[in-house]
Amino acid sequence: MPIDLHLSAIPGIPDIAPGAELGGLIAAAAARSGHAIEAGDLLVVAQKIVSKAEGALVALNDVAPSPAAEAWAAENGKDPRVIEVVLRESKRIVRMERGVLIAETRHGFVCANAGVDASNVAPGYVSVLPTDPDASAERLRNGVWMATLKGSPYVDAEGLRTATLSESPGAPIAVIISDTFGRPWREGVVNVALGAAGLRPLVDYRGCRDPYGRELQSTVIAVADEIASAAELVMQKTARMPVVLVHGAADLLGEGSAAQLIRPAHRDLFR
Amino acid sequence: MPIDLHLSAIPGIPDIAPGAELGGLIAAAAARSGHAIEAGDLLVVAQKIVSKAEGALVALNDVAPSPAAEAWAAENGKDPRVIEVVLRESKRIVRMERGVLIAETRHGFVCANAGVDASNVAPGYVSVLPTDPDASAERLRNGVWMATLKGSPYVDAEGLRTATLSESPGAPIAVIISDTFGRPWREGVVNVALGAAGLRPLVDYRGCRDPYGRELQSTVIAVADEIASAAELVMQKTARMPVVLVHGAADLLGEGSAAQLIRPAHRDLFR
Repeated sequence: MPIDLHLSAIPGIPDIAPGAELGGLIAAAAARSGHAIEAGDLLVVAQKIVSKAEGALVALNDVAPSPAAEAWAAENGKDPRVIEVVLRESKRIVRMERGVLIAETRHGFVCANAGVDASNVAPGYVSVLPTDPDASAERLRNGVWMATLKGSPYVDAEGLRTATLSESPGAPIAVIISDTFGRPWREGVVNVALGAAGLRPLVDYRGCRDPYGRELQSTVIAVADEIASAAELVMQKTARMPVVLVHGAADLLGEGSAAQLIRPAHRDLFR
Repeated sequence: MPIDLHLSAIPGIPDIAPGAELGGLIAAAAARSGHAIEAGDLLVVAQKIVSKAEGALVALNDVAPSPAAEAWAAENGKDPRVIEVVLRESKRIVRMERGVLIAETRHGFVCANAGVDASNVAPGYVSVLPTDPDASAERLRNGVWMATLKGSPYVDAEGLRTATLSESPGAPIAVIISDTFGRPWREGVVNVALGAAGLRPLVDYRGCRDPYGRELQSTVIAVADEIASAAELVMQKTARMPVVLVHGAADLLGEGSAAQLIRPAHRDLFR
């Protein structure tokens, strides 16, 4: 039973431009910095570089703010074009008061500004969340793994899989795409999982027994969010360290998606 | 700049009885299992064993449920005595519907059942949260460190500090007391910091600039909660592993408390 977890930020990820082959860049940076990506490993990738690679950027000069965006922006000292993008990214406004705009995105995430963000993108642009973060994670999972295998004994000279691996249902690693979200009642933001592939995001202890023999009632742990939070600790300390390699979480690998972490409205007491 | 984090569950923590000298037990278990606790290290300790050591347990046979507790318990198939303890531990009920009871504790935590829990305690008892989790963390910080130093060159044969260390303002380690809390909008629970000592719980990036020169607006990271979440990943996997040693977070050490993580009501849009 693994009871050790090791997290390392991978240095040397370049500035990401739209169309970048992110999986290859991550595998190359890992190899250059001596971080071997192995079966059972997990990568946490910041949403921002995924959005940038996928071109999920909006040029503010192309945005014509609606009267609602103009009014809110004027009241709160914000750029009306940014607010317009926020409103376009929102399925529903959850709170819009005291200068704070909390929205439900079309994915179902409830977060500040519907995930629209100007930090770490070129001036004049904002980033929006990836269209389908679980699909982005799945592409990265396979992209990183295939790029890691290139030159390894598992693939031939052209980088094609050999028979040994071609039978496997997917790359034997997991990827989480993370973003920082606020939460009610507590100060500060924490990293959560926006997208996931190759990972069971929830671990269900219901039906297990404690050492006293008592059956645990309602302990479903959001391990994908906990891994995203753990990764933030090494990610945020330095500029341009948006990828973290996690060793020791192999027993959490499996099939699942971050969409499973979104609580359906009928089970939510706070919408 | 440390960009690696290593988390290890410490095996061999015995079942904790009221009055147990928890700091000494943790230091002994760490030493026995080859986990050297060093200056700059951080320990995450599950709330349950802190409550047990402090005798924060309620014998259900001594509890006379109020009519309100009786009514809610009957409606939702719960033990009315447990509900009575929950109501006594609550400063305010935040939600009480669909079988879910979310309360604000006297500390200001908003959580299910006001932190009252029957798992991992002896049958016939429930545990309640420590009266002052930050003070509990501070006691553990010093208790673990003094017990760790015993027999080391820093202390004399009686285990008293030598002059070298007596000048220091506190033990050079940090302690987080963690518990699993649910959150709105997202499925599953995650570990958060109930108590902290020797740690700055929030890291404020406001005023810092991104690689494009843009000033970051509102990024205050709840690192204490992120560390608690990270620790849960190695804590929960096995029975009786309620203590996790974290190497690599030394730059987060400092003075602070988990009370700083509680958002004041006037800044909270969801009370």
